[in-house]
Amino acid sequence: MLRQLFGKNIVSKYHTQTFKSIYNTVQQQSQQNAQKPLTSLKEINGWIKSIRLFKNICFIDINDGTINSSLKIVIPELVSYENSIKFLKDLKVGQSISIKDLLIQLTPTKAQQPFELKLLNDPTKSINILGGIPAGEDFPLQKKNHTMAFLNSLPTLKFKSNYLNNLLKFRSFVDTQLINFFNKNDFIKTTPPILTSNDCEGGGDLFTIKDSEKYFNKSTYLTVSTQLHLEILALSLNRCFTISPCFRAERSNTTRHLCEFWMLEAELCFTKDLNEVMDLVENMIRSIVNEALKNEQSLLPNYYPGDVLNKEQILERWQSLTNPASWPRITYSDTIRLLLKQHMKEPFTNGIIPSWGMDLSTEHEKWISGKYFQSPVFITDYPKSLKPFYMKQNPPSEFKIQDNQGNIQQTQIQNTVACFDLLVPEIGEIVGGSLREDNYKVLADEMKLRNMNKDSNLDWYLDTRRYGSVPHGGFGLGMERLLTYLYGNTNIREAIPFARSASDNIQL
Amino acid sequence: MLRQLFGKNIVSKYHTQTFKSIYNTVQQQSQQNAQKPLTSLKEINGWIKSIRLFKNICFIDINDGTINSSLKIVIPELVSYENSIKFLKDLKVGQSISIKDLLIQLTPTKAQQPFELKLLNDPTKSINILGGIPAGEDFPLQKKNHTMAFLNSLPTLKFKSNYLNNLLKFRSFVDTQLINFFNKNDFIKTTPPILTSNDCEGGGDLFTIKDSEKYFNKSTYLTVSTQLHLEILALSLNRCFTISPCFRAERSNTTRHLCEFWMLEAELCFTKDLNEVMDLVENMIRSIVNEALKNEQSLLPNYYPGDVLNKEQILERWQSLTNPASWPRITYSDTIRLLLKQHMKEPFTNGIIPSWGMDLSTEHEKWISGKYFQSPVFITDYPKSLKPFYMKQNPPSEFKIQDNQGNIQQTQIQNTVACFDLLVPEIGEIVGGSLREDNYKVLADEMKLRNMNKDSNLDWYLDTRRYGSVPHGGFGLGMERLLTYLYGNTNIREAIPFARSASDNIQL
Repeated sequence: MLRQLFGKNIVSKYHTQTFKSIYNTVQQQSQQNAQKPLTSLKEINGWIKSIRLFKNICFIDINDGTINSSLKIVIPELVSYENSIKFLKDLKVGQSISIKDLLIQLTPTKAQQPFELKLLNDPTKSINILGGIPAGEDFPLQKKNHTMAFLNSLPTLKFKSNYLNNLLKFRSFVDTQLINFFNKNDFIKTTPPILTSNDCEGGGDLFTIKDSEKYFNKSTYLTVSTQLHLEILALSLNRCFTISPCFRAERSNTTRHLCEFWMLEAELCFTKDLNEVMDLVENMIRSIVNEALKNEQSLLPNYYPGDVLNKEQILERWQSLTNPASWPRITYSDTIRLLLKQHMKEPFTNGIIPSWGMDLSTEHEKWISGKYFQSPVFITDYPKSLKPFYMKQNPPSEFKIQDNQGNIQQTQIQNTVACFDLLVPEIGEIVGGSLREDNYKVLADEMKLRNMNKDSNLDWYLDTRRYGSVPHGGFGLGMERLLTYLYGNTNIREAIPFARSASDNIQL
Repeated sequence: MLRQLFGKNIVSKYHTQTFKSIYNTVQQQSQQNAQKPLTSLKEINGWIKSIRLFKNICFIDINDGTINSSLKIVIPELVSYENSIKFLKDLKVGQSISIKDLLIQLTPTKAQQPFELKLLNDPTKSINILGGIPAGEDFPLQKKNHTMAFLNSLPTLKFKSNYLNNLLKFRSFVDTQLINFFNKNDFIKTTPPILTSNDCEGGGDLFTIKDSEKYFNKSTYLTVSTQLHLEILALSLNRCFTISPCFRAERSNTTRHLCEFWMLEAELCFTKDLNEVMDLVENMIRSIVNEALKNEQSLLPNYYPGDVLNKEQILERWQSLTNPASWPRITYSDTIRLLLKQHMKEPFTNGIIPSWGMDLSTEHEKWISGKYFQSPVFITDYPKSLKPFYMKQNPPSEFKIQDNQGNIQQTQIQNTVACFDLLVPEIGEIVGGSLREDNYKVLADEMKLRNMNKDSNLDWYLDTRRYGSVPHGGFGLGMERLLTYLYGNTNIREAIPFARSASDNIQL
């Protein structure tokens, strides 16, 4: 019967159906009052989540990992089957089983699940244990609300928890949604290299391949950003992006840093205004949130470990991001003015007096985004000295600080670049982008100024401005930071299944 | 006007429209007889592909990288504009320009392009050069059919060639189509780690991170396959996959090997029969080919460098893959029998006499797939000794060799594993998969037999069989090999934009 139902599916020959596909089929059919609804299942497979055994009836909750809430198996009339009570008593949470000969019964509309499954035969004959639990032991994940510390102590089992299981699925959704968004907007998905001989950007933060000279006749590193290579591709494809692992040999062990992380990077040509790049970023994140609210609320956690946002709080955050008002865009200079004003009122705990030319600290970033605007905010046009060599240089401008009477206290000539950071409350920076310097001479001069012209591995990059250069821009988005912001986990390490960060022992 | 047309697009604030979106809009409208069709364009941006200047009219072919064939700009009535002839004479192929004030004119149905663009004003005022070509030089890519060797000599420009530009887009299509296929079938997209302490599988083929002990207190390597980590995730998610870079420190420089390549790996639980995994692989590849034939023929090359398949030959290959007959599935033992029979008739050039227990050589693989079956073919149930420790062991079987009279010459007891390689004509292996050994004791014994139990970094892997183990299986697909097969390029290095392979100098 199932074979008929799924016969037109592309994986027509599959023998095993996921709970998700069963669930969707039954729900669709009951809504459509199907003529020949799916009423029985030949076999299902899953892990036991809970067992409630009574005198003449038994309920087993079972999940195969594809849905958020378990399916309920009802085993009635136990007295009619010999040995069934003893058999069911011996079942354990965590075991994997297959069950044959089930009848689908729709439940009243108020029930948690739209249907339950009734076993038609002798449980000792219909239920087959595929994988057991060692004798004398219990399955370690018995509670629904284990702490994150406890979950992390079980690195091969922790993804069976409701929270981390759904977080993995949410990551899959965000990843796919990003790809759909870029495809719709004529961006080509590409694969810039991970191994690179470019050592100019990160300095000490690079991982080096041992004995790489043997293979490539050069010192070779793991990429910290694919941008420079992506620009080559953009100059042929016009718009392109990648979702790639990137690596930074960070020694700092914070809740915001990973040594191995995934980055979405995009480049687009014929971009004359930084606002176009910011529009793209804003629309991209909004498209994820809109789709999540519309179709993916089933990925919100039913149970969660301690310190993270719960279901209602995540929904609230998503809702706030659909506010139609554009996210504020404010220059670095204006940000310094705001920070200075705030500092006069109530000094920041880090003790730094905000001044033009300094990098924003995490505390500053969180205040601007979380306290002052209470919204994602784009900070634009940072000092040139704080940013990499490839960013497009703005015309020099004056920076004026006024006193309370509006008199100008100080005027400086400032060199800035056409760039932005997107800051979000609680996390800080999640996206950084800029226009790229497309003028050969300006870029060559800047590389010279930064002593990058001698023995440089980046002559090829300069070359991309030689024939038919175009105004272009792009950005990089830290996937784990975005996920952490959207799902409300407290540590970025929860947003990637096997975190690699400083002073971690790699357990597995 | 464009702003209105694209007002409901998610990137509503964009100022720049790609040729692809203009093209699609005009084509849709002319088919639908739109009431207010798109008739003018405020501004377009692109690179000059060719210029034909006559006495009173000029044609410029321009492309912005998003479509296969260029758009034609018609500049009429040159005599009415002063200086226009000199201005147009100075334009060069390869320059990037923006053009204002264009009228869209539909062309007769037989024309190559469904429309052309007529310039309404003085070209010296409407055309703006964004990026030039150095004085005294010509754009290096003048011809449409440059050889691959010549293209490879221009690593930052080669993707502007029609062939490699479309190959990049085809890769993007295949990547996206794979993701859609797996999403439809309830697989979750995941990110297993690239940095790993697992050194058990590849032996000498691992890239090592220099000084990794400083960061992770352990020797750390680049992954050769994400499978073992993926299995952990599958045991929670049921079905999952990844498209990740993998690394092999190969010293052999062939047309089939890369040091850095992308691999699609998938795992699925509750899989009791190897045929389920092969069904998945076959359906996956067919879904790409069907979609390519239906919607992506525009990605076929108009021009191609030398030795590769041309448009018609690629189409023929795709068509052959839609043949409804299942691809042959044949055991390793039967393959050895076939090879031996062939060897008696006409010895293979490599001189190896096919015998049970040996690994198949590339020549053998190509003969079986390309000559004997002339189809993709699954070879199953290889000797245990040829395969990794984690593959599910088949019951021991007898291998019999008969002479021409049907008399049994030889009988051996053979230990095989439930695995397969998918071989395709001309390339050889592109997919390898198996059922995984899910029995704790059998797996532990096998690891002991292979001396993997002492000081092993893989205790965690064994642990995945401890609590609620399930029958499961999976496979790995080499992305560049699949692309090479489907697009017909001759060297796998053309299927990845920045190839890393042995004895390559990393140029960029």
